[in-house]
Amino acid sequence: MEVIDVLRMKEGTGKTSYANNSSLQKRVITITMPVIQAAIINMYCNISSMVTKTLRIADLGCSSGPNTLFVVSELVRTIYETCEISGRQSPEFQIYLNDLPGNDFNTIFKSLQGYLEKMVQNMGTGLGPCFFMGTPGSFYGRLFPSQSLHFVHSSYSLMWLSQVPQGIENNKGNIYMGSTSPPNVFEAYYKQFQSDFSHFLRCRSEELVPGGRMALTILGKKSEDRFNSDGYYIWELLAMALNEMVSEEIIEEAEMDKFNIPQYPPSAGEVKLEVEKEGSFIIDYLEVSQVEWNACEWGVSTNNQNNHNVGYDLAQCMRAVAEPMLASHFGESIIDEIFRRYGNILCDRIAKENPKFYNVTVVMVKK
Amino acid sequence: MEVIDVLRMKEGTGKTSYANNSSLQKRVITITMPVIQAAIINMYCNISSMVTKTLRIADLGCSSGPNTLFVVSELVRTIYETCEISGRQSPEFQIYLNDLPGNDFNTIFKSLQGYLEKMVQNMGTGLGPCFFMGTPGSFYGRLFPSQSLHFVHSSYSLMWLSQVPQGIENNKGNIYMGSTSPPNVFEAYYKQFQSDFSHFLRCRSEELVPGGRMALTILGKKSEDRFNSDGYYIWELLAMALNEMVSEEIIEEAEMDKFNIPQYPPSAGEVKLEVEKEGSFIIDYLEVSQVEWNACEWGVSTNNQNNHNVGYDLAQCMRAVAEPMLASHFGESIIDEIFRRYGNILCDRIAKENPKFYNVTVVMVKK
Repeated sequence: MEVIDVLRMKEGTGKTSYANNSSLQKRVITITMPVIQAAIINMYCNISSMVTKTLRIADLGCSSGPNTLFVVSELVRTIYETCEISGRQSPEFQIYLNDLPGNDFNTIFKSLQGYLEKMVQNMGTGLGPCFFMGTPGSFYGRLFPSQSLHFVHSSYSLMWLSQVPQGIENNKGNIYMGSTSPPNVFEAYYKQFQSDFSHFLRCRSEELVPGGRMALTILGKKSEDRFNSDGYYIWELLAMALNEMVSEEIIEEAEMDKFNIPQYPPSAGEVKLEVEKEGSFIIDYLEVSQVEWNACEWGVSTNNQNNHNVGYDLAQCMRAVAEPMLASHFGESIIDEIFRRYGNILCDRIAKENPKFYNVTVVMVKK
Repeated sequence: MEVIDVLRMKEGTGKTSYANNSSLQKRVITITMPVIQAAIINMYCNISSMVTKTLRIADLGCSSGPNTLFVVSELVRTIYETCEISGRQSPEFQIYLNDLPGNDFNTIFKSLQGYLEKMVQNMGTGLGPCFFMGTPGSFYGRLFPSQSLHFVHSSYSLMWLSQVPQGIENNKGNIYMGSTSPPNVFEAYYKQFQSDFSHFLRCRSEELVPGGRMALTILGKKSEDRFNSDGYYIWELLAMALNEMVSEEIIEEAEMDKFNIPQYPPSAGEVKLEVEKEGSFIIDYLEVSQVEWNACEWGVSTNNQNNHNVGYDLAQCMRAVAEPMLASHFGESIIDEIFRRYGNILCDRIAKENPKFYNVTVVMVKK
């Protein structure tokens, strides 16, 4: 399984699409927005002499849905208002939307015109022209010309690894790190994260101008203990649903054993270590925030008592993220059943334990 | 009918897709390639001091198919070889692929990785990195930041107008300029071309650096006589097929009367006049080339005697270009029948008259 071929959010605008099931990610963006805004303002005020005419912003792992344009719209608005306050002319904006080549860029592109018109309507004609570009490719390689970017944003993307770690054939009955995974599995996942994240930093350090900034939010873990279940609990419950189906012979055990999710949830300390090792960036901000699994907190379900619904809302959200990957391994036909069972399990856990996602947000300045 | 919503080449990679029916356009690119190559070499040699690190190239109306990457691959190879000969280091390439938002960018993006690997394989590791960007939008508006481009190419795109000319309600029984069109129809089409092309030049003049170059090939006419059938014959024969279907009551006459193709085939003189009027560019080269309608000349049909096939090949080619537009007006269900009849007519004319397409190629330098 090549990650580049199967990792994508569920395309289109249908009921199970990512576009219709990305409220969790929207909530995370909303929580972290003040930090992102402060970062882009700081960048702009410090290096505006270098931004001669055009401010170049990249959103990495932009996906396809309302969040895609929400982020960049907030960034543009922030700069526009900063210019208004200081009496400067708004720059031109060149905005790069990046994701893997399998991402549904067509749907984004079709929505751009209406979105741009709304933006000009809201902000007035003093807003500099905005030029949108789609940039397909893995952010674990170079994507942009040398020293061409001023600001990089990425939310809920960098936990995805470039590949499933090697040497974890003994991770039986799991699809990820899990409470029954041998220690070498945890080690292999962490090593893959270190290698991928440091490669990411190296690529971006070539693409950002000195003084340019990066604001990254990564689905991570709160604890610095690498074996803490913070980081893997959500996938362990999916493994539980799959294992039920193995025991009922709906899924073959061998197929289950071969499947592993290419993701790693770093702690703040693990992120800091890689940034310092790579050496091109200075950390300006590093915090962990949290979002409940309970979809009421994201503004989806309105009845807080109804744990049945919130479990299914979360299952839908996870489906939009994992369906293309699961379908390519286990086949399309059992996807509904997987997520029905997963929904049941999630309902139960949300009611009993009120579990949370932890988000590591880091802002760094290019030296 | 908004042109931006219905003008696109037939998407995907199926039998009737543009990707599988674009040999005519490939032939035109091949014929004009020496001129395009000379233009980009001249640009690079004259302003290489300004191309500090990254050479920025845009292909406007790139569509989706083998031609999309054929053009830019030739441009990159040309610069690479120029650098090899002169002992310079290859620049980085930032390549913008532009088309309307309805274009099938997803298919292009999925093919990029394999294509890039082949390019590096052919040219060696001395080739500077190539960064591809999709730029959705109409080239009759701004697409790129100010003074950010070094070279613009466009082939078989600029004959498409931004809209159907207004005031041609009296163009009964035609879908374009035609031998029975009243003079005001010719006038309205020409006016729309003048307005669109001068707007295009103004936008590009803001985006190109001084000394930057544009190489444009436009499906046009050889004769400077605006009423010459050179420019409209291919569509007049499609009107003939549609009129047959009107007389058999398969198509409503009112629907036929309301449909007009948003295209204008300029002569070399008409192109020259607009460039001179706009004033930002100096013309470096202006020629008219020709391609037979007979698909044997494009390397599709191999049996030159078999006019039946070559007519159908041309009908397929025209279908890939016009189907989305026709289907949105007349409905999907009669498309096969339209092109069956059109194919018959084309077979007959190719056998009797050996008609030709005329291509106006202009190279201009930004002052």
